[in-house]
Amino acid sequence: RIDGKRLWDSLMSMAEIGATPKGGVKRLTLTDVDRQGRERFRGWCEALGLTVRVDAIGNMFARREGRDPKRLPVLMGSHLDSQPSGGKFDGALGVIAGLEVMRSLHDLGIQTEAPIELVNWTDEEGSRFGHSLMGSGAWAGIYPLEKVYGLKDVEGVSVEEALTGIGYKGEVPAKPFPADAYFELHIEQGPILEKEGKQIGIVTGAQAQVWYDAVVTGQDAHAGTTPPSARRDALVCAARIIDLVDRMMRARGEDGRGTVGQLHVLPNSRNVVPGEVRFSVEFRHPDFAEIERLAAQFPREAGFIARDCGTPLKLEELFRLPAQPFDPGCVDLVRQAAVRLGLPAREIVSGAGHDAVYVARSVPTAMIFTPCKDGLSHNEAESIEPGEAEAGCQVLFEAVVARANR
Amino acid sequence: RIDGKRLWDSLMSMAEIGATPKGGVKRLTLTDVDRQGRERFRGWCEALGLTVRVDAIGNMFARREGRDPKRLPVLMGSHLDSQPSGGKFDGALGVIAGLEVMRSLHDLGIQTEAPIELVNWTDEEGSRFGHSLMGSGAWAGIYPLEKVYGLKDVEGVSVEEALTGIGYKGEVPAKPFPADAYFELHIEQGPILEKEGKQIGIVTGAQAQVWYDAVVTGQDAHAGTTPPSARRDALVCAARIIDLVDRMMRARGEDGRGTVGQLHVLPNSRNVVPGEVRFSVEFRHPDFAEIERLAAQFPREAGFIARDCGTPLKLEELFRLPAQPFDPGCVDLVRQAAVRLGLPAREIVSGAGHDAVYVARSVPTAMIFTPCKDGLSHNEAESIEPGEAEAGCQVLFEAVVARANR
Ligand SMILES: NC(=O)NCCC(=O)O
Ligand SMILES: NC(=O)NCCC(=O)O
Repeated sequence: RIDGKRLWDSLMSMAEIGATPKGGVKRLTLTDVDRQGRERFRGWCEALGLTVRVDAIGNMFARREGRDPKRLPVLMGSHLDSQPSGGKFDGALGVIAGLEVMRSLHDLGIQTEAPIELVNWTDEEGSRFGHSLMGSGAWAGIYPLEKVYGLKDVEGVSVEEALTGIGYKGEVPAKPFPADAYFELHIEQGPILEKEGKQIGIVTGAQAQVWYDAVVTGQDAHAGTTPPSARRDALVCAARIIDLVDRMMRARGEDGRGTVGQLHVLPNSRNVVPGEVRFSVEFRHPDFAEIERLAAQFPREAGFIARDCGTPLKLEELFRLPAQPFDPGCVDLVRQAAVRLGLPAREIVSGAGHDAVYVARSVPTAMIFTPCKDGLSHNEAESIEPGEAEAGCQVLFEAVVARANR
Repeated sequence: RIDGKRLWDSLMSMAEIGATPKGGVKRLTLTDVDRQGRERFRGWCEALGLTVRVDAIGNMFARREGRDPKRLPVLMGSHLDSQPSGGKFDGALGVIAGLEVMRSLHDLGIQTEAPIELVNWTDEEGSRFGHSLMGSGAWAGIYPLEKVYGLKDVEGVSVEEALTGIGYKGEVPAKPFPADAYFELHIEQGPILEKEGKQIGIVTGAQAQVWYDAVVTGQDAHAGTTPPSARRDALVCAARIIDLVDRMMRARGEDGRGTVGQLHVLPNSRNVVPGEVRFSVEFRHPDFAEIERLAAQFPREAGFIARDCGTPLKLEELFRLPAQPFDPGCVDLVRQAAVRLGLPAREIVSGAGHDAVYVARSVPTAMIFTPCKDGLSHNEAESIEPGEAEAGCQVLFEAVVARANR
């Protein structure tokens, strides 16, 4: 069995890096704080005798050899980057639990048939450079590396500069290599497991999404002298589009998701009619057909609003992601482990995007969810119980070892 | 007569300080760029033999003695600070034209009966610390100095720190001193004079306004997992209030003004439902009764929206300013000057706030407007003709000298 206390202690140790006053974590991808997290993780891996390699997008792979040199590796992992005001567990749980699996194998003197690799994917959150699942997406070949290198944060720093800056632009090419399976443990980040008193979510797939960048152009003008008829207020237009996103979400019922999370106003002065507003838009739904409909409807309706406001809208679709079903065989290993351990479990579709979604395109994949308090995530108050982390980690251990020894 | 070329050259020289790539000016109050503007202005004044004093809020007074030591000074001036992306003339015209009046008096060897003082008021724009007309307001006793010193910009720098930082926290107390009159030349910042082909606006007063700070509190949550029913999205609420402000403005017809110019989202991440939004709101109208009605209606209706959204709203009224009529005698001096010079002129009410509004509470005051291209201001493209600056300056000269020699 894995060691629940050691797992929790390492989770808390990782949470010190980028700790925020309100009990959360700010470990934005490819910052110096991220580098510190990576270094601590690397140290733990090397202490176990694992070989750590880094690829061209900064993904880290820590390898434990198996008995059979011809077997493909079984992968597990998640991400150590966080939201600007994120929690201690989103991502870190999957990486540190993978470490605990490695430690337990080491303590128990188990050598699996297949090698096992523990992955820390770069920039899962997407909050700094605008593309979530960036490291796994580059690895999977979904984002061409040159395009990803050129993405910039709001300060104008590119991904390539940031990678080089923290010394994590690795030698290994960022592309899929043959692997036998991938397992990712993650907190649910939603309310379902907690509400139903389940310890384990057997994740059967992830929902579809579409993300946009929007720019509304109006005209800077004096707030005191410019009459209503002469105004081209970019913020009034953006406000109506924000309302549209909310209405389009609600029209889809409880399965709908529509969010404007990021918004910047220019020149952002109290007595100036805003001349430009830049903002993000994203929609999600378990059914890709619904996302296709949203992606047809939204640009059209937002365009009507912009025309009515006299403030042109530029809309760029950043990515459109179909729903991703996971591999039935891998999902079954998760189910069997939960049953064997007597843990109350249910099948669930992921509301969040995860690296597993891109990995699943070339490697048989499954995910394990654990509950989180009040379904809260992307929030400093994100919280889980040590027993929940332990249960999730034990299921990960069983599934990975079963797959590696099959 | 004043020297139009010298006036224009000095305007262009001042516009070099904080010049922006798009032809505008960024000379935010109490920054180092503002300090450079103040130093250049001080140098010009001292070269004329004027005595420059600085008061406790950084207002600068450049004095030219009159013949009669018992006469109260005639004041003229405006402001050298600008919007974050402002134009070359908003404020600077009145200060540099006042300098040209001083230079012309000097060249012509005229000593007026009353002394004349040229003022550069601190922080007229209000865009950095949230209170427009700050320097004149502190001088007029409308904002208690201790309260003004404590105001902070978005980076947390206080007015007092910023004043000390640029060496402009002066010795002279910031309070009204006896003065005979105040004249301020300014660009109209609106479309009326240009549309009617008038060279001079005889400003009879300024409209009423009310300003607010608003904070909407929601809950940070994951954009992918949080169902519509569980969302408390602060930005959706703010968007509906922005729309309300626009509708309340339009309900007042072409005289209405309602603007949300500044807005910040927290945590401002693409895949996080916003947990907090902070924004400014302001309304203006020529009729104070209308502002009183807006100030009763807006908090109530915004409160309803916030309640519907489940996201509490904190609304702080920053100031409420009645309409300010100017002094009939001073206004008449402006009218007479325009007539004498044969300049097409009309009476006009100021849409913008001006330092003259506060000065008028203790000193007989009038203002002179000149047209600006397309009525555009608080915009880097703000533009006037040299001939327009010259005509306005000539009217200022005549009015000030007439008053000082009466
Ligand atoms: N797991 C998670 O929070 N991923 C961030 C990407 C997303 O927005 O779904
Ligand atoms: N003149 C001018 O632009 N003043 C700024 C204060 C205001 O918003 O009216």
